[in-house]
Amino acid sequence: MAEMILFAGAGNPALARAVAAELGMELGSCRVEQFPDGETSVHLGESVRGKDVYLLQPTCPPVNDNAMQLLIFADAFRRAAAGRIHAVLPYYGYARSDKRTGRREPITASLMALLMREAGIDHVITVDLHTTQIEGFFPGPFDTLTAVPTLCAGLKPELPADTVVVSPDAGRVKLATEYAERLNLPLAVLHKRRESGSETRVTHLVGEVRGRTCLIIDDMISTGGTLVESVTALRDAGASGFLVAATHGLLLDGAIDRLRTAGVTRLCVTDTVPTPADGGGILHVVTVAPLLAGALRRLSSSTSLESLF
Amino acid sequence: MAEMILFAGAGNPALARAVAAELGMELGSCRVEQFPDGETSVHLGESVRGKDVYLLQPTCPPVNDNAMQLLIFADAFRRAAAGRIHAVLPYYGYARSDKRTGRREPITASLMALLMREAGIDHVITVDLHTTQIEGFFPGPFDTLTAVPTLCAGLKPELPADTVVVSPDAGRVKLATEYAERLNLPLAVLHKRRESGSETRVTHLVGEVRGRTCLIIDDMISTGGTLVESVTALRDAGASGFLVAATHGLLLDGAIDRLRTAGVTRLCVTDTVPTPADGGGILHVVTVAPLLAGALRRLSSSTSLESLF
Amino acid sequence: MAEMILFAGAGNPALARAVAAELGMELGSCRVEQFPDGETSVHLGESVRGKDVYLLQPTCPPVNDNAMQLLIFADAFRRAAAGRIHAVLPYYGYARSDKRTGRREPITASLMALLMREAGIDHVITVDLHTTQIEGFFPGPFDTLTAVPTLCAGLKPELPADTVVVSPDAGRVKLATEYAERLNLPLAVLHKRRESGSETRVTHLVGEVRGRTCLIIDDMISTGGTLVESVTALRDAGASGFLVAATHGLLLDGAIDRLRTAGVTRLCVTDTVPTPADGGGILHVVTVAPLLAGALRRLSSSTSLESLF
Amino acid sequence: MAEMILFAGAGNPALARAVAAELGMELGSCRVEQFPDGETSVHLGESVRGKDVYLLQPTCPPVNDNAMQLLIFADAFRRAAAGRIHAVLPYYGYARSDKRTGRREPITASLMALLMREAGIDHVITVDLHTTQIEGFFPGPFDTLTAVPTLCAGLKPELPADTVVVSPDAGRVKLATEYAERLNLPLAVLHKRRESGSETRVTHLVGEVRGRTCLIIDDMISTGGTLVESVTALRDAGASGFLVAATHGLLLDGAIDRLRTAGVTRLCVTDTVPTPADGGGILHVVTVAPLLAGALRRLSSSTSLESLF
Amino acid sequence: MAEMILFAGAGNPALARAVAAELGMELGSCRVEQFPDGETSVHLGESVRGKDVYLLQPTCPPVNDNAMQLLIFADAFRRAAAGRIHAVLPYYGYARSDKRTGRREPITASLMALLMREAGIDHVITVDLHTTQIEGFFPGPFDTLTAVPTLCAGLKPELPADTVVVSPDAGRVKLATEYAERLNLPLAVLHKRRESGSETRVTHLVGEVRGRTCLIIDDMISTGGTLVESVTALRDAGASGFLVAATHGLLLDGAIDRLRTAGVTRLCVTDTVPTPADGGGILHVVTVAPLLAGALRRLSSSTSLESLF
Amino acid sequence: MAEMILFAGAGNPALARAVAAELGMELGSCRVEQFPDGETSVHLGESVRGKDVYLLQPTCPPVNDNAMQLLIFADAFRRAAAGRIHAVLPYYGYARSDKRTGRREPITASLMALLMREAGIDHVITVDLHTTQIEGFFPGPFDTLTAVPTLCAGLKPELPADTVVVSPDAGRVKLATEYAERLNLPLAVLHKRRESGSETRVTHLVGEVRGRTCLIIDDMISTGGTLVESVTALRDAGASGFLVAATHGLLLDGAIDRLRTAGVTRLCVTDTVPTPADGGGILHVVTVAPLLAGALRRLSSSTSLESLF
Repeated sequence: MAEMILFAGAGNPALARAVAAELGMELGSCRVEQFPDGETSVHLGESVRGKDVYLLQPTCPPVNDNAMQLLIFADAFRRAAAGRIHAVLPYYGYARSDKRTGRREPITASLMALLMREAGIDHVITVDLHTTQIEGFFPGPFDTLTAVPTLCAGLKPELPADTVVVSPDAGRVKLATEYAERLNLPLAVLHKRRESGSETRVTHLVGEVRGRTCLIIDDMISTGGTLVESVTALRDAGASGFLVAATHGLLLDGAIDRLRTAGVTRLCVTDTVPTPADGGGILHVVTVAPLLAGALRRLSSSTSLESLF
Repeated sequence: MAEMILFAGAGNPALARAVAAELGMELGSCRVEQFPDGETSVHLGESVRGKDVYLLQPTCPPVNDNAMQLLIFADAFRRAAAGRIHAVLPYYGYARSDKRTGRREPITASLMALLMREAGIDHVITVDLHTTQIEGFFPGPFDTLTAVPTLCAGLKPELPADTVVVSPDAGRVKLATEYAERLNLPLAVLHKRRESGSETRVTHLVGEVRGRTCLIIDDMISTGGTLVESVTALRDAGASGFLVAATHGLLLDGAIDRLRTAGVTRLCVTDTVPTPADGGGILHVVTVAPLLAGALRRLSSSTSLESLF
Repeated sequence: MAEMILFAGAGNPALARAVAAELGMELGSCRVEQFPDGETSVHLGESVRGKDVYLLQPTCPPVNDNAMQLLIFADAFRRAAAGRIHAVLPYYGYARSDKRTGRREPITASLMALLMREAGIDHVITVDLHTTQIEGFFPGPFDTLTAVPTLCAGLKPELPADTVVVSPDAGRVKLATEYAERLNLPLAVLHKRRESGSETRVTHLVGEVRGRTCLIIDDMISTGGTLVESVTALRDAGASGFLVAATHGLLLDGAIDRLRTAGVTRLCVTDTVPTPADGGGILHVVTVAPLLAGALRRLSSSTSLESLF
Repeated sequence: MAEMILFAGAGNPALARAVAAELGMELGSCRVEQFPDGETSVHLGESVRGKDVYLLQPTCPPVNDNAMQLLIFADAFRRAAAGRIHAVLPYYGYARSDKRTGRREPITASLMALLMREAGIDHVITVDLHTTQIEGFFPGPFDTLTAVPTLCAGLKPELPADTVVVSPDAGRVKLATEYAERLNLPLAVLHKRRESGSETRVTHLVGEVRGRTCLIIDDMISTGGTLVESVTALRDAGASGFLVAATHGLLLDGAIDRLRTAGVTRLCVTDTVPTPADGGGILHVVTVAPLLAGALRRLSSSTSLESLF
Repeated sequence: MAEMILFAGAGNPALARAVAAELGMELGSCRVEQFPDGETSVHLGESVRGKDVYLLQPTCPPVNDNAMQLLIFADAFRRAAAGRIHAVLPYYGYARSDKRTGRREPITASLMALLMREAGIDHVITVDLHTTQIEGFFPGPFDTLTAVPTLCAGLKPELPADTVVVSPDAGRVKLATEYAERLNLPLAVLHKRRESGSETRVTHLVGEVRGRTCLIIDDMISTGGTLVESVTALRDAGASGFLVAATHGLLLDGAIDRLRTAGVTRLCVTDTVPTPADGGGILHVVTVAPLLAGALRRLSSSTSLESLF
Repeated sequence: MAEMILFAGAGNPALARAVAAELGMELGSCRVEQFPDGETSVHLGESVRGKDVYLLQPTCPPVNDNAMQLLIFADAFRRAAAGRIHAVLPYYGYARSDKRTGRREPITASLMALLMREAGIDHVITVDLHTTQIEGFFPGPFDTLTAVPTLCAGLKPELPADTVVVSPDAGRVKLATEYAERLNLPLAVLHKRRESGSETRVTHLVGEVRGRTCLIIDDMISTGGTLVESVTALRDAGASGFLVAATHGLLLDGAIDRLRTAGVTRLCVTDTVPTPADGGGILHVVTVAPLLAGALRRLSSSTSLESLF
């Protein structure tokens, strides 16, 4: 087997260090700089010739800087004769841009896949992708891991017995079902849509939440705005408590305050992207480092990932 | 502008003839044969040099024969110096294979897009695609038309006043909303999922159907099996009548009988794929020929398709 | 060396099993299904990550189904991070479509090569290709094996001493020479062509067949029609017996009966494609399983194939 | 000829408006947004079908945002069936990353060219490229315009008669010669290099500057640091006045103040990139809008650009 | 339609001039030089922007120089924004390298097609290709013209009434038949092959030549060696006179003398490649300029080539 | 690790043999022929299946023959299932064609890179490339070695103590500095440029040469013409002796005589390209065989090349 080496982009160096520690190895030596004009410079500090090169780089905010840096790293690897180039994107930015709503828009999630391939990336590894179709944008090996077991293990000890898992909309039912099955809890689903002839979005609830604690799940939390809407709808339906779990905690623009104010008492996310130091008393971060380390260990020896699922 | 020419593959020659008639032009001359060993042979009967070539070929059953024929036609066009090659797929086969449910499966809808591009196809035109993400599999121009206005125009005259539009599952809510808005009718949604710890799929209904006529909509009807499940669930909920509308009426293996027996009294589909001659007294086929002809007329003069929507 | 794994497509599973048995290994686990609408579904039952993956799939009838399945398998392998993907096509369908007779036709043998490459196939292995130029359609490694030694070994014990090898037309002289040299027999050649100003095809014979047994050889037998013409011409020239040998026995549409009726007493083919269970008393099938197993053993250890020739 | 349409990216909308005004046309309608998480969204407000689409987007700071936006626009154009996509980069970012200084670096100027091509860009138009080799990174049509005549026309009226054109290093001699010939002025060259066995960079001057006004030229001004070094060296050599001219005035981090303090009394740049509103009393901006408009007018009618040089 | 322009490579400038004269146009202005180290330099003397560019360049000896020059011209055209690039190869070099005789050889005719495509060539036009399969090596438009009618028109006036057309081997029967039908003459075929167990190549003759004049045809004449063998065999069979016709007269290394000495009294070729000034009293050259001009005229207006056949 | 094999093209077989001897291995067996019509034929004499294949082939004169042969070898390797294909170009022909001086020229150094990639070459190894940007033309691994240490080791013993290293123009200062630092000698630079309003090229000298021996360095020597100009300018400046060192000694058209006549007493080059047998008493050739062997040894074991620098 080719020797394995793991580099950390600027997207989430703490996670990269944690993964390296799990693997008992040093991170690959490199120097990443930003020139005064904002241009990104990458210099590899050691040979990658013939090696199995992994770059851990979520394309979280600042998304364009992180995306370009990912591509620039790949270019450096390729020209330095790396064996295979694996992009580990714990968070795949632009994932919601996976379709056009009209006919005059880009499909940026597809573009990103094409750019990665063009830059020489052979293999993509992600965690809890926004929609599974994105895998089809990349014409090569693609492995999507799931942090749901990790999150459930973090959630379980403190969940009230009366908790019900809530999918915030129809598109997350599959994800919510995974939580419900792992936690052995019932499931409820919020459905939001416009009624014919009306501008107001109406929310329907399927399942029983009255007097119970709701664990609202999602793949990612951006500003928390739609979560607050869900909390309101659930409170109207008689729910008595609110917990939130999501894989990717972008938590932009005061999202934590907004959720706490809305009544969320616990917000559980992973470290696929950097999270705020100040968790406002509700943030609980579980690490995906062991998950990623387990995957990289298996990948580097061409072992099946099956046992991770 | 380059001269336009329209060829008919074996997938739906009747529709191609109807489109050509709408456009007031002859179909391109060609001879398609199947050798005794099943190999497909294509011979173009006239020059395509420098022309804007359209091939109308839904990849409906026999899907592999139709798909290969599509690619073979494209190869013939390309080698004969066609200007631009436009694949008109009123029905995009393998569309449900747009993602992997495990990690050891193909994504055939993506593969088909790559094969079309490799065979020289410059532009794809489809009708009511199963999921919009499929557009992102093809790295070039892609136009998805909708037959919903056409179907609604066909449905409207005979709809009872008490009709409610029903989405058979969460994935079709957007489509059902389009019907409901065009027909100015209320909307109901069926939700099917497995409960935690159970093998049985439970159906929830959001919206009011008691004593009303249900217009169940879908993008396509294959064997009609899931539609029959929906009818049963709606009847249990008190619905009094059942109509069905869908763009693509594959209607395989006695689908019409199955639906009629279940209580469906009207089944409205378009001619994107060939439909059975015997409609069992319930089948109503509306043609997309004017829709496609309108699109081709605009495309051939590089006019925006906006006015079609 | 990467681990080797062999999968069987639906084109010739019996041959795949025989090759696996020769290699002392199990076939790769997979599930191939055809949906009611004819769409092909492939699910791999075990990991192919980093492995040297071989798929045995002749593109014999139903050629389009087998060809699409080949490409779909490749897509599944690629996305599942297979090491290298080797397509073993004991029979290369569309091989006679290797040129255009006019300027408005496809070159489907070339298209097939491009589609295989686009689907991720790295290497093609075939047996007795219809024309050698086809190798040039695929811009990558291509190995063409020959079943002639295998067929000769099967033929030798029962050949009358007076046998003459007959090439049915000018294009097969090279193949016939290989038979003649291996069997240490004389050679005769039939030449068919239209005379100037005439519509009738005239057959000339070069070589002596009077009173002798003719072993007519070819690369493949489809309906047997042209073979019957050859038998007639040879009988007219005084030949006293007729044997036939060919690598690929498609044997369509009553070919065996047609040949037996014409006077052929022995028809020797290999199992590159599935052959009829009822051989009409004249069919003799020799297996290429040892040939393919020998090749795969050498390929999997990157050993030269030289010793197979 | 196909209809022409010009869009403005966020890199330099003022220049795009000026070019459109020169051409007597409206800018293409589009909406560019940045989501809270920094993801760029592009929505075209009108049809580009079949049109000759130009996007004016210098990849100046913020370079990664502008570069990604350029690629995202191209993706939107391509999927919307644009005829040909022309990227007008008045300033080509990452141009100094045109080679590796060691063997473990990217060549980002080459990567950018590959990404542009992959995103569907057919043609690149730039102004005064840092090194001409960059054209060779893009395997397609590439036009490099020069703003030197424009700058000279702006400089000429106010140049003292004793002015000498100064190249700040050996790499800019060709550019300086163009200025000197157009302005009919003598030329001097600064040469900077490390002496063997020394860490200090020594500057040699070829040409006569004593008592004269120096017009130091360059292709771009970033922080102005090296220009200040040049001024110091020239003052040491007896020069009595300092003017600066450059095509691309990035003018980062107080560059204007730094130059004014060093004694530069006039700083002439173009508007290929946005320039500061406060020019510190020394900045003089000439516009390349007529140059670009002239090029686009010729390109859109497939006329030679020769007359622009 | 885009404007057409025709350039002459160094392969056959006289033919290019003749084609331009037929078309009533000037050749495109360009300067082709060879540096002292043998590197080829191309400088276009006029704009090709948006034009339909044709380059006439047979890849005859010096084949590598002509092939590289073809690719270099294409690179210049592409970078200068040519509309479409058409390579007119009256003679396609390396055509006999269209297959591997073992498994350790190149397929240079296929490689040439790939290199042409990579260099930006959109369309290939040839005359009497050695084997038709070569068209399949190029995944784009390919037009093969035939000079047989031109040659027949040149031959007809001086053919003795007793002439018989002779194919020198089985591979040329199709070509010989075209001659025979156009000239309304009988056909004979030489067949050469090794007999089993013998090293000597035996020649069989099918058809009657005794006392008649033989018109031996071929696609190309290189050194004339195999033609001399054919003459000998035909003389042994009683033939009384020998004429030769071929499209491509490379006529290397004293070929004309060799043929005259062998008894050939007339050698008719075209000017697809430059022919010797001294024809030894037997050489008759007919020009393909009208044929190529007719093709270019039709191609430039996207008219079918059908009427040329 | 894959097994390594080294083949010698016709460009410099002596160097290939020397490298193989350094590595203690045999050269790969192959037969390269030129047909009477100049077509190049390659036949590999042994299996390359799965091997790490190196081809040593400088693209020196005859450059087009050597370039085509390089591509043809690559095609043979690829089709024979070579593992990875490494092109070792001790001299990269067409390197000076790395940019366009106008807008109607090719960039042949870029074209060569694209052709190499298209022919299947995975990795390029060169020595002292004319400009570093050329690496960016090839989108893959590229290693540029330097022969300067080798040349310095050859020069050192015989250099007079008063020697000064001279860069013949501004573009070679970086190279000259490497020599000066390694030899611990001072540096002088010649600058040539046209003055405004004059046709004559004027040469300026920076640095002290009076009464000293000048070691003029360059990357390559073609006809020696510009070197003679440099000698003249240095003599005018009072230099008393002239030595020349360069990596690539093409030495065309009497270059050695020309230099000796001009007063050069020692001309030191390497054997990256074949050098004349008659060195005119001044030629000193040092071999790069150990340098290349060292690189290949490291590459074949995927070891960093760092220790070579």
